[in-house]
Amino acid sequence: MSNTYGTLFKISTFGESHGPAIGVILDGCPAGLEIDEAFIQSELDRRKPGQSKITTQRKEDDTFKILSGVFEGRSTGTPIAIIIENQDQRSKDYGHIAEAFRPSHADYTYEAKYGHRDYRGGGRSSARETAARVAAGAVAKLLLKKHGVEINAFVSRVGDISTAHYSNLDLSKTEENIVRCPDPVTAEKMIALIDQVRLDRDTIGGVVTAVIKNSPVGLGEPVFDKLHAELGKAMLSINAVKGFEYGSGFEGTSLRGSQHNDEFYKDGGRIRTKTNLSGGIQGGISNGEDIYFNVAFKPVATIMQDQPSVDKQGNEITVSGKGRHDPCVLPRAVPIVEAMAALVIADFLLRSKVSKLH
Amino acid sequence: MSNTYGTLFKISTFGESHGPAIGVILDGCPAGLEIDEAFIQSELDRRKPGQSKITTQRKEDDTFKILSGVFEGRSTGTPIAIIIENQDQRSKDYGHIAEAFRPSHADYTYEAKYGHRDYRGGGRSSARETAARVAAGAVAKLLLKKHGVEINAFVSRVGDISTAHYSNLDLSKTEENIVRCPDPVTAEKMIALIDQVRLDRDTIGGVVTAVIKNSPVGLGEPVFDKLHAELGKAMLSINAVKGFEYGSGFEGTSLRGSQHNDEFYKDGGRIRTKTNLSGGIQGGISNGEDIYFNVAFKPVATIMQDQPSVDKQGNEITVSGKGRHDPCVLPRAVPIVEAMAALVIADFLLRSKVSKLH
Amino acid sequence: MSNTYGTLFKISTFGESHGPAIGVILDGCPAGLEIDEAFIQSELDRRKPGQSKITTQRKEDDTFKILSGVFEGRSTGTPIAIIIENQDQRSKDYGHIAEAFRPSHADYTYEAKYGHRDYRGGGRSSARETAARVAAGAVAKLLLKKHGVEINAFVSRVGDISTAHYSNLDLSKTEENIVRCPDPVTAEKMIALIDQVRLDRDTIGGVVTAVIKNSPVGLGEPVFDKLHAELGKAMLSINAVKGFEYGSGFEGTSLRGSQHNDEFYKDGGRIRTKTNLSGGIQGGISNGEDIYFNVAFKPVATIMQDQPSVDKQGNEITVSGKGRHDPCVLPRAVPIVEAMAALVIADFLLRSKVSKLH
Amino acid sequence: MSNTYGTLFKISTFGESHGPAIGVILDGCPAGLEIDEAFIQSELDRRKPGQSKITTQRKEDDTFKILSGVFEGRSTGTPIAIIIENQDQRSKDYGHIAEAFRPSHADYTYEAKYGHRDYRGGGRSSARETAARVAAGAVAKLLLKKHGVEINAFVSRVGDISTAHYSNLDLSKTEENIVRCPDPVTAEKMIALIDQVRLDRDTIGGVVTAVIKNSPVGLGEPVFDKLHAELGKAMLSINAVKGFEYGSGFEGTSLRGSQHNDEFYKDGGRIRTKTNLSGGIQGGISNGEDIYFNVAFKPVATIMQDQPSVDKQGNEITVSGKGRHDPCVLPRAVPIVEAMAALVIADFLLRSKVSKLH
Repeated sequence: MSNTYGTLFKISTFGESHGPAIGVILDGCPAGLEIDEAFIQSELDRRKPGQSKITTQRKEDDTFKILSGVFEGRSTGTPIAIIIENQDQRSKDYGHIAEAFRPSHADYTYEAKYGHRDYRGGGRSSARETAARVAAGAVAKLLLKKHGVEINAFVSRVGDISTAHYSNLDLSKTEENIVRCPDPVTAEKMIALIDQVRLDRDTIGGVVTAVIKNSPVGLGEPVFDKLHAELGKAMLSINAVKGFEYGSGFEGTSLRGSQHNDEFYKDGGRIRTKTNLSGGIQGGISNGEDIYFNVAFKPVATIMQDQPSVDKQGNEITVSGKGRHDPCVLPRAVPIVEAMAALVIADFLLRSKVSKLH
Repeated sequence: MSNTYGTLFKISTFGESHGPAIGVILDGCPAGLEIDEAFIQSELDRRKPGQSKITTQRKEDDTFKILSGVFEGRSTGTPIAIIIENQDQRSKDYGHIAEAFRPSHADYTYEAKYGHRDYRGGGRSSARETAARVAAGAVAKLLLKKHGVEINAFVSRVGDISTAHYSNLDLSKTEENIVRCPDPVTAEKMIALIDQVRLDRDTIGGVVTAVIKNSPVGLGEPVFDKLHAELGKAMLSINAVKGFEYGSGFEGTSLRGSQHNDEFYKDGGRIRTKTNLSGGIQGGISNGEDIYFNVAFKPVATIMQDQPSVDKQGNEITVSGKGRHDPCVLPRAVPIVEAMAALVIADFLLRSKVSKLH
Repeated sequence: MSNTYGTLFKISTFGESHGPAIGVILDGCPAGLEIDEAFIQSELDRRKPGQSKITTQRKEDDTFKILSGVFEGRSTGTPIAIIIENQDQRSKDYGHIAEAFRPSHADYTYEAKYGHRDYRGGGRSSARETAARVAAGAVAKLLLKKHGVEINAFVSRVGDISTAHYSNLDLSKTEENIVRCPDPVTAEKMIALIDQVRLDRDTIGGVVTAVIKNSPVGLGEPVFDKLHAELGKAMLSINAVKGFEYGSGFEGTSLRGSQHNDEFYKDGGRIRTKTNLSGGIQGGISNGEDIYFNVAFKPVATIMQDQPSVDKQGNEITVSGKGRHDPCVLPRAVPIVEAMAALVIADFLLRSKVSKLH
Repeated sequence: MSNTYGTLFKISTFGESHGPAIGVILDGCPAGLEIDEAFIQSELDRRKPGQSKITTQRKEDDTFKILSGVFEGRSTGTPIAIIIENQDQRSKDYGHIAEAFRPSHADYTYEAKYGHRDYRGGGRSSARETAARVAAGAVAKLLLKKHGVEINAFVSRVGDISTAHYSNLDLSKTEENIVRCPDPVTAEKMIALIDQVRLDRDTIGGVVTAVIKNSPVGLGEPVFDKLHAELGKAMLSINAVKGFEYGSGFEGTSLRGSQHNDEFYKDGGRIRTKTNLSGGIQGGISNGEDIYFNVAFKPVATIMQDQPSVDKQGNEITVSGKGRHDPCVLPRAVPIVEAMAALVIADFLLRSKVSKLH
């Protein structure tokens, strides 16, 4: 159950970092959707390792294969199975951690929970699992495009270097630099910082901001499955995420109601709000304004330094950073955040078809 | 579906603010648990309106009735149905909003989604629904007590007035003042601020912090149902919540990995961490340290001031604050946060029973 | 989980035979449906005890109350909670079975599973629970009426007395006699048999047949949630049911493929089949022909005779039939079968809204 | 959702008859289970085509590959993904049915539901999908073996040729003949009948009986998820199944309660019943006696004869039987019935871990 996400547009992922393959089953994609395979690949390429000097140099092509659910280029309504074979496994890099508990990794908790785990490269707890999400998320994006919905995420902060509010940025420029920040000046500073951190054999965290434009009114379900509650869960389920806020977020809690309320007005035939501290969501349901939110990523736990720790038997050991890792996960997190957002919105889009009599 | 929460320890709530009753069905409570009705009532009393000068003066006894699932004082393993009849309804207070869209309320989005809604007191979107959660959460707490788990939440910020880190506070003092802040000096300031806000006919937001002690190791499921992802969803599903962060949260993203990693050590027979920026959760699974998180609440949308808005037909109108409302929702939010946390932990406790062969 | 049925049009029932009330939460009913309360009551009246000389003489009015989800006569899209208070409880009738395991009842299995049970009147295992299903099923019928779907069940066999195939019967006559058999001559024989069985202080089983007319084409999901698989589960979940077959059923297995296949032809603008051994379902999906199936009910386990048994401690005891019970459950089972069928069809109707792009 | 089965021990299947591969994700298998790959293959071999003269001569090795969830021979608690590549596809055999609606197949209903389908070999509606179930069912059997549970199915009827009651048969002999009937004399007659049917270019149906021995007491959930209701759904979800009955089944409905009730007695330390018309299930929960049930299979729809039909455009056409098909599906259905039974029991075994406080 824990490997499945969604209610009607539903994904189940599987696979370990160093097993034969990872993959995803997408169940609930409506029949008749054109499946643009080049687009899926381009999304995977945005997430794949080795894409620039500021990401891990581990090489994986992340080439995918569709095993089912697509016929003559269109979805059939049956499960779409996608697999990505693992190529550059180098299991020997990980032999030394079979017994070790790396600091702030999932080694200890998996061991305690399951008593038996695939320790190679973190096994199931590896962020490699998110490639499967990106593949499925690309299909969700194809569905959303048909409804005019646009999803754009970008790196809004690395360490203490941050951009202006999204409304003052040109989001079409996000892909123009390797850190995926739409403000070129800030991007340069972020890249320089990540480079420094890498030379220091350390890692650093930051924030991804996502903006969803042209969402239909009425997405989200009251009470437990509020739109922002599902977005929050989806984001918090991504490796290394420590926080989520939408609209005015934590900062808005210092305001007074008279400052925070968004005034309604009539704009042509449409009801809109003058401000948007609500972040496009009221009572858990989209109101048609931009949906926007921030996702906090901690610094990657694997650092190229010696760290004291313990092993399975409780012996004191030293964990040495080996392998090839990201000094900052933010640039590669952007397509993952977008993918999870797309999956959430696609799911609510389908759920909204049955909310009232037609 | 949207009115149900949990996988094995599962609640479904129902009811509108001004209907005959609200309630909850708790399905999945193991048989044999002693149901302490006085404790359930005491939890409801912590949430109920009219409890102090800084909450709404609306009066509801919030007396509950158990309709099923308990026999001779103990749970039977069948659904526990609990209802709370609505008493002080004063529907006439709300007649003026039948056609109006109140700013930053759910009126417009419900209308768009359903085409038909119970507008009285916000109907289903009213925070009154959370009384049902508190009742069920009290049962979850009874189950957790058997396992030694303790859950304590408190108001850590109102507007810009905030407490120290939880580890420097005596959480046993939370209930000693009406704002539910364990630091008496800060509590006084918070109360003064809320009082001022009330006189200004305005509202103010803040933050609730929760701490879960003595959690077993191994709670939470990898990938989508990570412990913090479910805690996040549960919190974000509470009315007026705008953000969630756990452990080092948003602030920790500025740190470097070498600063952020929690070092393991052996403490007697137990593996522990020296610091706890992980917030007791690694790879989505509890590691036995304190689980702690922050929940951001926006200022209540209902203010005692005139606000411009539109009605169903798109006419410009003025919405005037009437009825009896909270100037600050934080003090009453504390038991709600605890209840949702208890439901999440109880659910994962049951789910953990099947993670490995015994 | 075990008390919830359905995917989008979803019910959760609660309550014990001798507790304060039983009830149901219906989550997922689209907003805007007119809720005809008189119709719901009339359905409950068809199931209620004491309705004729061949049913139990236990008296329950089975008057229901709607607690939520309906406003100004129409559904709001939020959970519809319905409760039925228990009146004629006579718990003293059941004191003698607190420790006893009645033959072919659920006493022993509940005791083994839960270690603690409400033994009064069978508690949760009582067929009284089905009143909640009938109430929710009535709402499902109201939804289906809007789509022209008709559901009719009737008693097709009692003991060895059976009717002709449904296609040779006038189903509009089912309610004209107390045994709910549309063939008046057979009905008389059935009534006489049940009367005799009652005088013998015994019970007898039989078969209910259900027919669903005007089903849309395309209901049901391939693979696990086939239309007939869900109908089967729904029927088998009714107390005392031992078997389910649809279309040609068990008998059709003796045929050859050349005899069993239903030939397609064009009837005006519509594709139809000349015969209907498929029972209106092919590949798990409705094809627009009549959906029909049989449901086998065993003889009621409670008989007015002494029976040897054991108690909780394993002592040999004699169980004596007391209380007021049905000599034959079939007449009252008819509305229950219809209710469960309506719930299944309503659920698939909603699910069908998302099977392809529109 | 419709491609997923189970609550805690949960499978999701994917794949079309003539796509690159079919497969299954098993989520919820407890960690630490030894995965005997040779056993999984032997189960697949019992189901595979071309195994004897009375099955289809289509050749598929049905060799499987485990992609995840197993490490060093044992389950890790993460999803077990298994794929089976399709080899002998001969898509050209099916080109002629791209537009045709074959009688009593799913062609028409899929077309109506999805508007777009993979017609090759029936696509998703092909019984080839059941290979995935058998693979996952084999893992379920491995889990059940640890608990001593045994599941045996056999062919109890072909056309009008049937065996005695299971209690009079030696079930260890089932695999000794190609029809999988434990009574050698009856088996010979069945084989002769199937041979004759094949020469007649026709098909024939029959019944599979399954027996589950050594089930723990307490499996199954009251109300909707009764043990027999889930078994019924699981069986009815298998291609070509038309009916399900357990214990005394349809026949038992003619009995009187005094004949039908199973008398309890004490057998050493254990409570047992003298007869077992209940089929090992009372109130939806296992009582420790043999669980047994019958599953009705219709004659296969594909016959080697010309049949009139219509095509997508409604034109009258003739469908000619081509390709290689089973004259009788029963022998190959035996491992499928066992697999689905194993999945149901394994799921309830896990669910039973949380029914009461320990």
